[in-house]
Amino acid sequence: MPDIIDLRSDTLTRICKSDVETLDFAKIGDDCYGEDRYVRELEAYCAELFGKEAALFMPSGTMSNQVGLRCLAAPGDEVVTEVGYHINFFESSAVSVNSGLVLNPYHSADGILTAADARIAIQAKARWSKLYAAPKVVAIESSINSYGGIVYPVEEMRRMRALCDEMDLSLYLDGARVLNACTRLDMPPARYVRPADMLNFCFSKGVGAPFGSILAGPAEKIEAARVFRKWHGGCLHQSGLMAGVALDKMGHWQRVTQQDNDNAEWLGRRLGEAARLKYPVETNMVFIEATDAKGVAARLAARGVLALAWKPDLLRFTCSSLVTRRELERAADIIRASL
Amino acid sequence: MPDIIDLRSDTLTRICKSDVETLDFAKIGDDCYGEDRYVRELEAYCAELFGKEAALFMPSGTMSNQVGLRCLAAPGDEVVTEVGYHINFFESSAVSVNSGLVLNPYHSADGILTAADARIAIQAKARWSKLYAAPKVVAIESSINSYGGIVYPVEEMRRMRALCDEMDLSLYLDGARVLNACTRLDMPPARYVRPADMLNFCFSKGVGAPFGSILAGPAEKIEAARVFRKWHGGCLHQSGLMAGVALDKMGHWQRVTQQDNDNAEWLGRRLGEAARLKYPVETNMVFIEATDAKGVAARLAARGVLALAWKPDLLRFTCSSLVTRRELERAADIIRASL
Amino acid sequence: MPDIIDLRSDTLTRICKSDVETLDFAKIGDDCYGEDRYVRELEAYCAELFGKEAALFMPSGTMSNQVGLRCLAAPGDEVVTEVGYHINFFESSAVSVNSGLVLNPYHSADGILTAADARIAIQAKARWSKLYAAPKVVAIESSINSYGGIVYPVEEMRRMRALCDEMDLSLYLDGARVLNACTRLDMPPARYVRPADMLNFCFSKGVGAPFGSILAGPAEKIEAARVFRKWHGGCLHQSGLMAGVALDKMGHWQRVTQQDNDNAEWLGRRLGEAARLKYPVETNMVFIEATDAKGVAARLAARGVLALAWKPDLLRFTCSSLVTRRELERAADIIRASL
Amino acid sequence: MPDIIDLRSDTLTRICKSDVETLDFAKIGDDCYGEDRYVRELEAYCAELFGKEAALFMPSGTMSNQVGLRCLAAPGDEVVTEVGYHINFFESSAVSVNSGLVLNPYHSADGILTAADARIAIQAKARWSKLYAAPKVVAIESSINSYGGIVYPVEEMRRMRALCDEMDLSLYLDGARVLNACTRLDMPPARYVRPADMLNFCFSKGVGAPFGSILAGPAEKIEAARVFRKWHGGCLHQSGLMAGVALDKMGHWQRVTQQDNDNAEWLGRRLGEAARLKYPVETNMVFIEATDAKGVAARLAARGVLALAWKPDLLRFTCSSLVTRRELERAADIIRASL
Repeated sequence: MPDIIDLRSDTLTRICKSDVETLDFAKIGDDCYGEDRYVRELEAYCAELFGKEAALFMPSGTMSNQVGLRCLAAPGDEVVTEVGYHINFFESSAVSVNSGLVLNPYHSADGILTAADARIAIQAKARWSKLYAAPKVVAIESSINSYGGIVYPVEEMRRMRALCDEMDLSLYLDGARVLNACTRLDMPPARYVRPADMLNFCFSKGVGAPFGSILAGPAEKIEAARVFRKWHGGCLHQSGLMAGVALDKMGHWQRVTQQDNDNAEWLGRRLGEAARLKYPVETNMVFIEATDAKGVAARLAARGVLALAWKPDLLRFTCSSLVTRRELERAADIIRASL
Repeated sequence: MPDIIDLRSDTLTRICKSDVETLDFAKIGDDCYGEDRYVRELEAYCAELFGKEAALFMPSGTMSNQVGLRCLAAPGDEVVTEVGYHINFFESSAVSVNSGLVLNPYHSADGILTAADARIAIQAKARWSKLYAAPKVVAIESSINSYGGIVYPVEEMRRMRALCDEMDLSLYLDGARVLNACTRLDMPPARYVRPADMLNFCFSKGVGAPFGSILAGPAEKIEAARVFRKWHGGCLHQSGLMAGVALDKMGHWQRVTQQDNDNAEWLGRRLGEAARLKYPVETNMVFIEATDAKGVAARLAARGVLALAWKPDLLRFTCSSLVTRRELERAADIIRASL
Repeated sequence: MPDIIDLRSDTLTRICKSDVETLDFAKIGDDCYGEDRYVRELEAYCAELFGKEAALFMPSGTMSNQVGLRCLAAPGDEVVTEVGYHINFFESSAVSVNSGLVLNPYHSADGILTAADARIAIQAKARWSKLYAAPKVVAIESSINSYGGIVYPVEEMRRMRALCDEMDLSLYLDGARVLNACTRLDMPPARYVRPADMLNFCFSKGVGAPFGSILAGPAEKIEAARVFRKWHGGCLHQSGLMAGVALDKMGHWQRVTQQDNDNAEWLGRRLGEAARLKYPVETNMVFIEATDAKGVAARLAARGVLALAWKPDLLRFTCSSLVTRRELERAADIIRASL
Repeated sequence: MPDIIDLRSDTLTRICKSDVETLDFAKIGDDCYGEDRYVRELEAYCAELFGKEAALFMPSGTMSNQVGLRCLAAPGDEVVTEVGYHINFFESSAVSVNSGLVLNPYHSADGILTAADARIAIQAKARWSKLYAAPKVVAIESSINSYGGIVYPVEEMRRMRALCDEMDLSLYLDGARVLNACTRLDMPPARYVRPADMLNFCFSKGVGAPFGSILAGPAEKIEAARVFRKWHGGCLHQSGLMAGVALDKMGHWQRVTQQDNDNAEWLGRRLGEAARLKYPVETNMVFIEATDAKGVAARLAARGVLALAWKPDLLRFTCSSLVTRRELERAADIIRASL
């Protein structure tokens, strides 16, 4: 597919031979026996990067989120979140059926679930006694996929932490693309995510590993996570093949996320001249309003540019290592001509 | 407690000897063997009253709601509702753990989950494919406890039915106090609840039976409900003792709900002169704003009037057969003096 | 139905006017507000009778068992039991869906799950790490319905307690008919059930209350039970109507269970002359083998004697206050003539 | 670790550079978008190999089993299986919590759950009405890990199919190592597994892929499996890296399983001269009895031979491509000397 410019998602980033042929295959063992050195190294690297005691390799972000929430709450407990955050937007069946948790999803003004929002969401339900669902976790997201990849603000995270302390809640961060946020903020990951008790990060997005995520948090919670991961069928064997690639890719996270963010910023400016941007462009995504998103996406596809019809009136363009600046320029022209 | 005027809840209505000594005890059998004639009669009476094919006796409104929703949706499916409706406000742990359903609770403007609200709530989540939670039920409430006992409007129920038809959803009505609503509307129950596929009604509230609820709906769904009731431990034995009292009490539902509604209307006017009413008084409840609801409730209790501190700044007064108009007059004076 | 002799079940025992007209209706309040004095008295009576710290009124034995097990184990934990015990025989869907527990049901030699059996059942699964289901509870039954109402032996209960101590398990007793067992053993209930951490007893069986059960155990567990009961929809309102009758009936438990046990012993001797008794008659039941149990039950019914076709080749006759010795004599003749 | 001879498990088989550098990386896409050609090819290959309409790539055998069972039964339904089969032995928490199913595990005489066993297991519980758990699936295993890797007999599988037809049950085969069984039987996989409605096979065992399993069955069920896989977090992105390796490895399944089976047969003969074999050696495993399995395993490890202490008195040795015949000969001498 030489002429396709794929802006649908950063999960589509491809791997190539050179990604795997440089691996040290002797390090790959059976992670179910705790013998895969790449997995161990990747877990240690991520614990360090995010400033948490421990980390656990996960096959997917969905499993990482589910297991993480389950570590912080028991069946029947409540997770306060925003209606558009991945955990509610895409994963709500898993939350009920596999994790047994109650979602309390709030409609925020602009995609940022503020501490004030969380307080309203909590107070909107019966808190008379322990007979009723107990809020145990606030789950936030950064960058926020459903809201244009905007960054959850540092200040708000501190306020949310204060609320959590006041109300004895845990703070969970779905940081599937948190490194794009850190790059935008020019802030070390460990510092940015410090208010969160646990977090998820996905290697399969901009960083470009084939798949896999990491769950990071207190050592005791990560031990519990092993059990829930097992129940989900997430204990793989030679996952080091994946972890090794992810570890290599992580060596370049700063450069890659910078480039993707920059590209999106450029694309946002270009498209903003011809269309209405739904959200400010803060990381690697651009969302534009379109009367018939599916129709526009089809027309674009016919001209070699792939975009995602996020909602009937909303198109998403994602910058990743799949697309060079030069291709982006070409894509921008095609998009402008198709609107 | 001769001097206590109890306005906390209509669930507190008491039974007396005359309620039970008139029963025909020969009718009472083992409902687990299908041999309790009072239960059968009560079920038939309610099916007729609400214009549904079949009905099933339930120990409580919570179980009736849980079983009803489970009849209309499978684990992992989504129930759209209002954040303050009983199903979300009080029962959300049960919804996740015992019923395995996903709640999609919306914050409405004034307590009425409109069809437009439901549409927004549904569109706020991923509906890209069946990989994501499928909305299957809209759950409404009438009268609406958390919002002052207001009546879910007839017109809105028709619009909601149209939305459900359009989107292939079921409409569930938590009608714990639906007869108070019907009296307010001066509308036959079967006509008012016609848009709903299934509904719950509680004998234990204004009608004054000791406990018990009814779940009404299509015969096929009621058959399924027997299974879920069993799993909940809700198949009782000589429940006819309860059903017999409920059946007698139901003979007076029009008079009782009329009197309770009238009393509340009177009380609302009286209290409205001295305090801010939070909601219009449409059925048997009056909610007033109070800076320190718990404190006021304690002061009132010391003077023989019991009220419920619903939220830190909200007091609920409920009219029921526990309180005569004369007592209500005395209570009103005490309340006004205590604000 | 004047001529019917009903030997199907002791849950069919009826209540009559005199059971309720003697109640002190002033004691009946709303148990959801903790204001029903009969419920409180019944709970205190049962805690004392069974020698446990606390007790909680439950609408049914199924709910009592489900909530009890859930107090002693968390979702994913394992309950070791016998394949024919009520918890596995009748309630297994509830155990999985509502309680989230894993059943490990063993086929014992003769209906008594011995400590040795439990050890085998436990060792038959992977116990390598906490990644696998952790056995947390052994659930026994006494008297044992599926095995002819035999009594779980005192000595075996001590051995089971020792096993539980050794393996850090809780011992749960489904004592739906445990008073029939105590009478047979001539042993105070508190002494007999001492090895069990928690137990269920049903008022709705031989004792003759309309319905309702009690869950007894440590105060802390009973507090937790309130939450799970709520999720099941088991918090009723004026349950004192029921609890009051149960409390009165409990005053006669020794006489009633003695009489029912004696009647069954007599019936067992009479039927044993003409048929093969499947189990020794130890409490209030007689099981006989029959080639076509349903056919025999139908023939008996046509002649006014009701029995239960327990399995295709097994008939159950239960003695209860529904049947006098004189009726039993008549029934025995009819049964013998029908085999 | 040059001198280690690893006989613990065939999941420990390693991958090397040559396994991946021959891949066609252009085929690897995002499987969440249905764009990974290796995954599609592997699924088509397996559907053909096992003679089923469709197949779905799964991250692990545990997830494959859980999703497979969930396709054949709904929460509250019952799965009849053998106590030592993987689904019960290792996965029972997942079955209850994530799949909501009830296990009915039987203790067979020798590891083969016969149709007669299944009938006894089914009849041992209440089947009076749909109020009680409905048996919906019989889950068998072949080869059977917990019982020495023995083969589930062809004739018995036909009888089990007949039982399933008679009782309207589905037959599920956990065929994690089913190709070792087929090789032993010299029978084409599609023919052997024909009686099963759905089956799981693991690429991560003897075949030597890094991880991953396949779930095969009717197209309609495989569509449903996509949903449950999503809830488990099992939809990966560039899983083609894994699927590509698996596809290559599958080209050699006959040679590899033949070699592993032969090696085990040889090892069984050698060890049988010095120890008691617990089970006949039919595929690639040898289990020997040992008074102190952990102690023996530790002594062996000190001498460079790794074995698995399966139970306190049982050692497992597994033949895989990790170990050559020459190494096996050396291992056999060491093992014999250590017993």
